[in-house]
Amino acid sequence: MSKPVVLTIAGSDPSGGAGIQARDLKTFAAHRCYGASVITALTAQNTTGVQGVHPCPPEFVVQQLDSVFEDLDVRVIKTGMLHSSDITSVVVETLSKHYERIPAIICDPVCVSTSGHTLLDEDGLLVLKTSLIPLSLLITPNKSEAELLLSSVQGEGTKIHDLESMFTGAVRLLDLNPQAVLLKGGHVTVHMKDVIAVQEKFEAEGINLTVVKQNLLGENMEILSAFSDDLSDLELAVDVLVEKADNRRAMFVRPRIDSSSTHGTGCTLSSAIASELANGSHSLTKAVEKATMYTYLAIQSAVPIGEGHGPLNHLHNIRHSLIPHRMPKHLYPFTHMLINSCATSWKEYVEHDFVRQLGQGTLDRARFIHFIKQDYIYLKYYARAYGLLSAKSTSWGAIQSSTQTILNILHEIENHKASCLNFHITEGELDRTPEAAATTAYGAFILDIGLQGDANKLTMALMACLLGYGEVGLWLVKESRLPGTWVVQQDNPYWYWAQEYSGEMYQSAVKIGLETIELMAQADPPNKARLKEWIGVWEKCTRLEKGFWDMAMELKY
Amino acid sequence: MSKPVVLTIAGSDPSGGAGIQARDLKTFAAHRCYGASVITALTAQNTTGVQGVHPCPPEFVVQQLDSVFEDLDVRVIKTGMLHSSDITSVVVETLSKHYERIPAIICDPVCVSTSGHTLLDEDGLLVLKTSLIPLSLLITPNKSEAELLLSSVQGEGTKIHDLESMFTGAVRLLDLNPQAVLLKGGHVTVHMKDVIAVQEKFEAEGINLTVVKQNLLGENMEILSAFSDDLSDLELAVDVLVEKADNRRAMFVRPRIDSSSTHGTGCTLSSAIASELANGSHSLTKAVEKATMYTYLAIQSAVPIGEGHGPLNHLHNIRHSLIPHRMPKHLYPFTHMLINSCATSWKEYVEHDFVRQLGQGTLDRARFIHFIKQDYIYLKYYARAYGLLSAKSTSWGAIQSSTQTILNILHEIENHKASCLNFHITEGELDRTPEAAATTAYGAFILDIGLQGDANKLTMALMACLLGYGEVGLWLVKESRLPGTWVVQQDNPYWYWAQEYSGEMYQSAVKIGLETIELMAQADPPNKARLKEWIGVWEKCTRLEKGFWDMAMELKY
Repeated sequence: MSKPVVLTIAGSDPSGGAGIQARDLKTFAAHRCYGASVITALTAQNTTGVQGVHPCPPEFVVQQLDSVFEDLDVRVIKTGMLHSSDITSVVVETLSKHYERIPAIICDPVCVSTSGHTLLDEDGLLVLKTSLIPLSLLITPNKSEAELLLSSVQGEGTKIHDLESMFTGAVRLLDLNPQAVLLKGGHVTVHMKDVIAVQEKFEAEGINLTVVKQNLLGENMEILSAFSDDLSDLELAVDVLVEKADNRRAMFVRPRIDSSSTHGTGCTLSSAIASELANGSHSLTKAVEKATMYTYLAIQSAVPIGEGHGPLNHLHNIRHSLIPHRMPKHLYPFTHMLINSCATSWKEYVEHDFVRQLGQGTLDRARFIHFIKQDYIYLKYYARAYGLLSAKSTSWGAIQSSTQTILNILHEIENHKASCLNFHITEGELDRTPEAAATTAYGAFILDIGLQGDANKLTMALMACLLGYGEVGLWLVKESRLPGTWVVQQDNPYWYWAQEYSGEMYQSAVKIGLETIELMAQADPPNKARLKEWIGVWEKCTRLEKGFWDMAMELKY
Repeated sequence: MSKPVVLTIAGSDPSGGAGIQARDLKTFAAHRCYGASVITALTAQNTTGVQGVHPCPPEFVVQQLDSVFEDLDVRVIKTGMLHSSDITSVVVETLSKHYERIPAIICDPVCVSTSGHTLLDEDGLLVLKTSLIPLSLLITPNKSEAELLLSSVQGEGTKIHDLESMFTGAVRLLDLNPQAVLLKGGHVTVHMKDVIAVQEKFEAEGINLTVVKQNLLGENMEILSAFSDDLSDLELAVDVLVEKADNRRAMFVRPRIDSSSTHGTGCTLSSAIASELANGSHSLTKAVEKATMYTYLAIQSAVPIGEGHGPLNHLHNIRHSLIPHRMPKHLYPFTHMLINSCATSWKEYVEHDFVRQLGQGTLDRARFIHFIKQDYIYLKYYARAYGLLSAKSTSWGAIQSSTQTILNILHEIENHKASCLNFHITEGELDRTPEAAATTAYGAFILDIGLQGDANKLTMALMACLLGYGEVGLWLVKESRLPGTWVVQQDNPYWYWAQEYSGEMYQSAVKIGLETIELMAQADPPNKARLKEWIGVWEKCTRLEKGFWDMAMELKY
């Protein structure tokens, strides 16, 4: 249940596309991480560009860092816009003050905005290179950041213009002493032939290279190729990863996307990597693979917001849950929801005139007899439905439980027969009773749901009967205890019925039923369509139950 | 698809529990809103308290607001910590500058932190009261904020200590001219008898009062009461809403929770209300009802983070989606995932030696004959499975589609018989052929899945056959077109088979199959357990397909 804490140290973006607002909370949340964020500078920006920057006093950056480090167990740190040498320095100092062993740092060397605003000054760049990058597990420059960082590493600048120079540049950046470099390829167009050329070159040189193809059709996928572009013409975006350890290299190859929803792509990717690491990714390659795919899908599924470069859809991989959590004081949230979903028909069922008159002892004898005869017939359907549930089960536990229920029903039938005798109805008469349409409707509906859906949907069809009779029993007993109650126990020929359904044996079956559907809803959380189906089945059964008692009151067949 | 934009104007909290980090992005995200955030002040705080505050220059608050308002279509604004009179004033001015008709404002009058830090100075409070509150749709003070606001409204201060004084205080706050006041009851303990007393009092006075009971058992829920506390003893938390319009009043009543995960409860609630309004809630009462329930569950489901008052679980109502979105260039993400999920067994199936030898024309005649005889038997299972699918369907479209497939299979069978005659196998011989175990295994497995699960699971069992033969057909044709191909078309007695499965008629059935399962995965997005089941069925079928060809190669029964 506990979430790993990831800290971002960066600027804010009021429009929510980049900055801590995008990478921190949206990306971390999408990865089930808990996000903390220390703000280095406020920006005024939107999808059209950066309009202004207000740096935070370095000492207040320190104060924010102290508040976080003193209280939270930070697993991974991601740095973005650091703005100045002062801020960069105090970040490094504060880290060293709080940690003997500094948590994994992903340094996104944000320097210049697309609109030309300086996000890290020249002195800041120097401090970044000499003090933060050597502490970093990974740096994640794009083409221009890499060129800027390289311009001083090398005497002469290195230009990055194709896949080969991306690898050359990334390897040279290892000289700045991070553990690894991910050079982002968003601004370099690559074709599959370039990928193959690099692959062959490295193979010839004996260099270990992993090629991760993303959203590209692999082998044995001819049936999917009808609407896909020819791979050899496709424009690709390739990110390049080089690691100091074992001289490992990797390429992440995917189709280039033509989209204007790219505001904050870089910081989203580095935050996604930080999250994957915090979640315990086995290797950097695996973390980058997942994070690039996450970012790719976030761009693809974005809807336009604002007038310029809109934000990504950071939450593309989450959906809304429809069933509340079970809590110690709220053990049956799903059943609660079910009852509320059709409170009227549930009430018409469990407080039916038949039930009231039964409780008062005023119920017409012929109506009660009609009811118990039809109930005898109905229970055969009900037992068969549990047989079908058994046939649809996939675990021994489920087979055992439905079989036990059939045995319980057989026991109930014996009681039934005995009490029928009290009303002078023989077993022969029971067996000769014609089946009423209301009985057929209810019984056949349950079996139809059993044929038509899965075990869980069938379980839903079985619950209104099990739980409703338990509710009726408890309600009658509760009412009987109120001062001046309308319920009659003495000389009520039907009171035995209320006792049976409020009794320990039946109520323990009710509890098992409640437990079963609550666990089912947690283990198989339904999507909207399925929840609607489940509730539909439940509601229909409450109406069929009401119809069953109407049938008894009207002595109908 | 497009999300409504909600703007928060507030302070930041590096620990992520309160401030824009909590209410803005987490709460907005949980409500499917797009969050923008303008920072008024940075704080250094954590779960143990506020350690420092760094206000943002008012002119930079304006610049942030301008960036947002110039680019985004803000539907609802939520204000939190405004820190000073200057900032409060420029917020009101900037709003008036950008909007003819100001968007709905929810004003959370944050004044003092629990740890005693001033979050809004005295002058600021005055500006808030005179200029921001009158523009607000709703203000959401807690007990002490309400008392502070009231201390100057009234000559003498109003103390809020019970449910009745909460209503009195809330009504008096309407004098400050917001449209409505929500007085939060987190610091006032209430019992059910107090709720009933207020209900009766208002009824006597003819005042319109809505009582919303949350997470409390209602009527006809006897079966759920076994583990619930007695309602009359239960400590309750009640929020009180009063509206200027029609003198409407409402109470939101729920069990008090004993939890230390309450850092940022207030701002979470007001952000949730803002989100509900942005999403188009019909009434303020409905928005508050949903928002209080959201906040309640966020507290209940929180796990401890930090050493003091930990944050809420803002994302309790979201889950992770497992199937990527369909995109124009990625039409079959679910099938892509399926094939990748068992690439090895899929390859062993579609590139089986039987297929290779068939393509080369070197396949032993007896093996091919064994295969087509068993395929004739298998197809009867396969047709019956579509009959079962028809029986399990809930829409006319689904009934039509499975029935059409049976007709297609009947057509395939006629072709089958004709080509068998080419191999001198009569229909009588076909019907007399004993069924091989591999045929029974595959056919009976599909029917078992059909008995055991729902229509979608059965559909999964039908796909490996449909799609795999299409894949084999296309693969053989593709290979045949490569220079120096191993595939032989001339004088290959089996080539007709490759042509049939790569032909237009069969491939159009493949496309319908692809479309069917992609739509199915989007319409019925599986949870983890169901996805595992679906993939399990798919993989088992690919292995049974391989077994089918093994059987042919080994001439086995």
